[in-house]
Amino acid sequence: MATATNTTPDRITFDTSPDRYHHWKLAFDGPVATLSMDVQEDAGLSPDYKLKLNSYDLGVDIELADALQRIRFEHPEVHSVVITSLKERIFCAGANIFMLRGSTHAWKVNFCKFTNETRLAIEDASENSGIKFLAALNGICAGGGYELALACDEIILVDDGNSAVSLPETPLLGVLPGTGGLTRVVDKRKVRRDLADVFGTIAEGVRGRRAVEWRLVDAVYPTSQFKERVARRAQELAQMSDRPASGPGITLGPLNAKTSDDAIHYSAVSLEIDRERRVATLTVRAPEADQPTTPEAIVAAGDQYWPLRAFRELDDVLLRLRINEPLIGTVVVKTVGEPAAVLAVDETLLANTDHWLVREIIHFVKRTLKRMDLTSRSFFAMIEPGSCFAGSLFELALAADRSYMLDDPDQPNTIALSGMNGGLLPMSNGLTRLQTRFLGTPERVDEVLGEQEPFDAQAAMDAGLVSFAPDELDWDDEVRLAVEGRAAFSPDALTGMEANLRFAGPETMETKIFGRLTAWQNWIFIRPNAVGEQGALTAYGTQKRPEFDYNRT
Amino acid sequence: MATATNTTPDRITFDTSPDRYHHWKLAFDGPVATLSMDVQEDAGLSPDYKLKLNSYDLGVDIELADALQRIRFEHPEVHSVVITSLKERIFCAGANIFMLRGSTHAWKVNFCKFTNETRLAIEDASENSGIKFLAALNGICAGGGYELALACDEIILVDDGNSAVSLPETPLLGVLPGTGGLTRVVDKRKVRRDLADVFGTIAEGVRGRRAVEWRLVDAVYPTSQFKERVARRAQELAQMSDRPASGPGITLGPLNAKTSDDAIHYSAVSLEIDRERRVATLTVRAPEADQPTTPEAIVAAGDQYWPLRAFRELDDVLLRLRINEPLIGTVVVKTVGEPAAVLAVDETLLANTDHWLVREIIHFVKRTLKRMDLTSRSFFAMIEPGSCFAGSLFELALAADRSYMLDDPDQPNTIALSGMNGGLLPMSNGLTRLQTRFLGTPERVDEVLGEQEPFDAQAAMDAGLVSFAPDELDWDDEVRLAVEGRAAFSPDALTGMEANLRFAGPETMETKIFGRLTAWQNWIFIRPNAVGEQGALTAYGTQKRPEFDYNRT
Repeated sequence: MATATNTTPDRITFDTSPDRYHHWKLAFDGPVATLSMDVQEDAGLSPDYKLKLNSYDLGVDIELADALQRIRFEHPEVHSVVITSLKERIFCAGANIFMLRGSTHAWKVNFCKFTNETRLAIEDASENSGIKFLAALNGICAGGGYELALACDEIILVDDGNSAVSLPETPLLGVLPGTGGLTRVVDKRKVRRDLADVFGTIAEGVRGRRAVEWRLVDAVYPTSQFKERVARRAQELAQMSDRPASGPGITLGPLNAKTSDDAIHYSAVSLEIDRERRVATLTVRAPEADQPTTPEAIVAAGDQYWPLRAFRELDDVLLRLRINEPLIGTVVVKTVGEPAAVLAVDETLLANTDHWLVREIIHFVKRTLKRMDLTSRSFFAMIEPGSCFAGSLFELALAADRSYMLDDPDQPNTIALSGMNGGLLPMSNGLTRLQTRFLGTPERVDEVLGEQEPFDAQAAMDAGLVSFAPDELDWDDEVRLAVEGRAAFSPDALTGMEANLRFAGPETMETKIFGRLTAWQNWIFIRPNAVGEQGALTAYGTQKRPEFDYNRT
Repeated sequence: MATATNTTPDRITFDTSPDRYHHWKLAFDGPVATLSMDVQEDAGLSPDYKLKLNSYDLGVDIELADALQRIRFEHPEVHSVVITSLKERIFCAGANIFMLRGSTHAWKVNFCKFTNETRLAIEDASENSGIKFLAALNGICAGGGYELALACDEIILVDDGNSAVSLPETPLLGVLPGTGGLTRVVDKRKVRRDLADVFGTIAEGVRGRRAVEWRLVDAVYPTSQFKERVARRAQELAQMSDRPASGPGITLGPLNAKTSDDAIHYSAVSLEIDRERRVATLTVRAPEADQPTTPEAIVAAGDQYWPLRAFRELDDVLLRLRINEPLIGTVVVKTVGEPAAVLAVDETLLANTDHWLVREIIHFVKRTLKRMDLTSRSFFAMIEPGSCFAGSLFELALAADRSYMLDDPDQPNTIALSGMNGGLLPMSNGLTRLQTRFLGTPERVDEVLGEQEPFDAQAAMDAGLVSFAPDELDWDDEVRLAVEGRAAFSPDALTGMEANLRFAGPETMETKIFGRLTAWQNWIFIRPNAVGEQGALTAYGTQKRPEFDYNRT
């Protein structure tokens, strides 16, 4: 199989800011922000491809993700966002095919995962933060371009006789749209499945009135009216917001990660890598200084307020782990510090959920934990004396595939819950991690949440909150064997097993995108009909036509 | 990749009967039937492997599926079924590894699909037919063996210090349990996900009290009590049934398919294959003679009653198509006959839903249509003059990926709905096909169901019931281009696209098994870590240890 690695860049960082953007322009006009795509062909992550026609690679999407965060945190006065393009008659041609073709399988999968998370973050902002999104399609909108539009609340397409929306992946490339397109077409926009089937096989797409009739877009307007209609609708959407009428917001400063070959250190988070064992230790530290307790003081603390700071660092390290450290199969999750300090922060958050910034912080914590759920590494939480798996940090143990808690009467070691475990940090399946854990004994959820005292190891075992509680004689061996054993298994089987066990309970559009759709996409991404020497992805843009093995599977 | 085809048999038939079983014994004792696995090592579908330790191949499962149908139709007096083994200290070792290793990818996928459908049929019988299932695990129960047990209502395991339940696929074979195991562990039995994670990595499994505590089984009993406890519980489960106290049932006779190189003909169904175009035409014929209208007459007609006869034939032909005709990518679906004759049958079925046999027939029709939904071929329904897409047969058009209806005023051509489209034939997602079709306009469902008159092509288009209605001038070209166009696409991309578009709306445990779980399994089944020269599936049973590429994806 042709899986060239030449266009897969070496090390990726996710930290950026508008003054460093290559591909997006972010403009503000009162309650409406405009996010305009203007991809620089020569500024891709690799020199091996050119980002023509507003096609994108991971670098473009990192900027988009950053812009979305900044609108949420830095611009509370923004109530609606127009996503459009600065290129004439082209909105976006989707993910760059030459980038995909030159990428390893793992890169493709991670690229799609990140872009999916970014589009879900758009929907999260719409649903939970009072920011409505309007896709203003001023030209051709293909593949990932249309999938970006699908993530918005509404889609307006210019009716110029040429501009169309399309998902040409199946007819042109022999793969699926990788960013939720098929799911959102039938599940979000509720396009009839037979029409979706037709749409998914027409490379040139659908335009004009038919695009409206098929529910693919909400409206079409002639070029002469397009800008004015978009502006008017953006103002209307902005009216629906419950965000503050004005700022100030806070500034998201750089994360200042200190990296070495085998470690990444931030202020509250660190990742230490044991390459020989293929294990990393992820440590999150509780706040050490007093934290603000009023919204005003939280705004003043800004990005240095502990939960925002710690979870921004956690988010960043998870992304780096995924992309830059594919050989690290197991992550040992630890916490260090005073449980009381974490619980005090939780109390402040819970007391101020109606403040815009607190709301943003809580949703950011939620999204970061979802990122952990979706990270295809084995997470083992180690609950030891000196740790602070309490409240929102206990979610790390709940997100882990297993947890081990040292049971040694001589060394106090407890976990604790808070209101933050009660509903503000749902998983992609719409349930809390406690609800998902206790699907078989749902009465347990309220029982454990009602417990005022911390749980020692025995109480935690009795309550079903941890997996194992070895004593001090067994601890070292049991933990070592578990971690070593994990490292010996097939990484693919572990990825599949975890993807199935982590999401018990209901499926949502979100879990469907990462479960059903992504799993099929991953399958297709390694089939010779896509990536073989004569596969469609390989043949695209060459003179050759793809040759398929027509056996149906 | 090592995908030897030597152990993939040539042509498979699905028609069998108890007197021809090699691997199962079916015994009756009043309201309790016992289905005992006793696999003949040398009676596999291929001589290339031996079915040791009650391991199974497709042939074993075809008998199981047949036995389940016969219990439903031939033995209405059966109210509970014990599934056990006649081998000493071995219940079932799961799917035969050497069979899997020697199979093509497509064979593995089809094998898993069929075995999944069979296990779901067990759950369907429990939920809808008043037959409860008790897995009596008299010994080692591994992999697919445990997955069979998971499909039962209750699981009793012998507590002999040795017998355990296990899902050793990940630790031993580098693949996933392929028959719903992971999903059922967390979603049906609601095993805590961390315990499921541990369970899924312990090759030797879990036994005794721990198996009960982890919810993996419902009870364990020492060998001395095992048989008596199983018998007692089977009697208790039988009490819960609403089936008749006694027979007679009906006899499911052989289907008598007439096959040639390019066709399969039954009494009401035919499949004609155009190998060059990779297209098959599937035709279902309406009843030609008068059909019974009372339960007594339906019992007397038995397997010759049209809906049972036609859908048994349809079920059989879909299975043969999947397994024996992998190169046929597109199926043109036609019907022939009097719509009124189909609607009259629907009326009889609807008027007698409380009769046990009518209930069985309706559920059989439902399962067959689900089989069509899950068949990875493109279905295009062609609605032409002389067709009878009415009521239950209109479900074939709704199950198709698209439908084309000739609009020619000179040739009357109509479709019609009946109460059978209203709720008795749900898809795997729990919705009817009409509800799924009209997710975006749910009010349409009742509107179209309330329409008393048949729909001509224009009315059908207006109502959203068909995809296209070309006139007589365009028909030939439009249909030909659609079918030819479909045949040119990557079969893998089509499989993935259809699997995502067909199941809009809610996900259920059933759709999860075919969506999330199966898609991941298919991915893993073609990864070198499983099937490469040094993959775990390849290495199993040899002296070699697997060697993995430890990059996580």
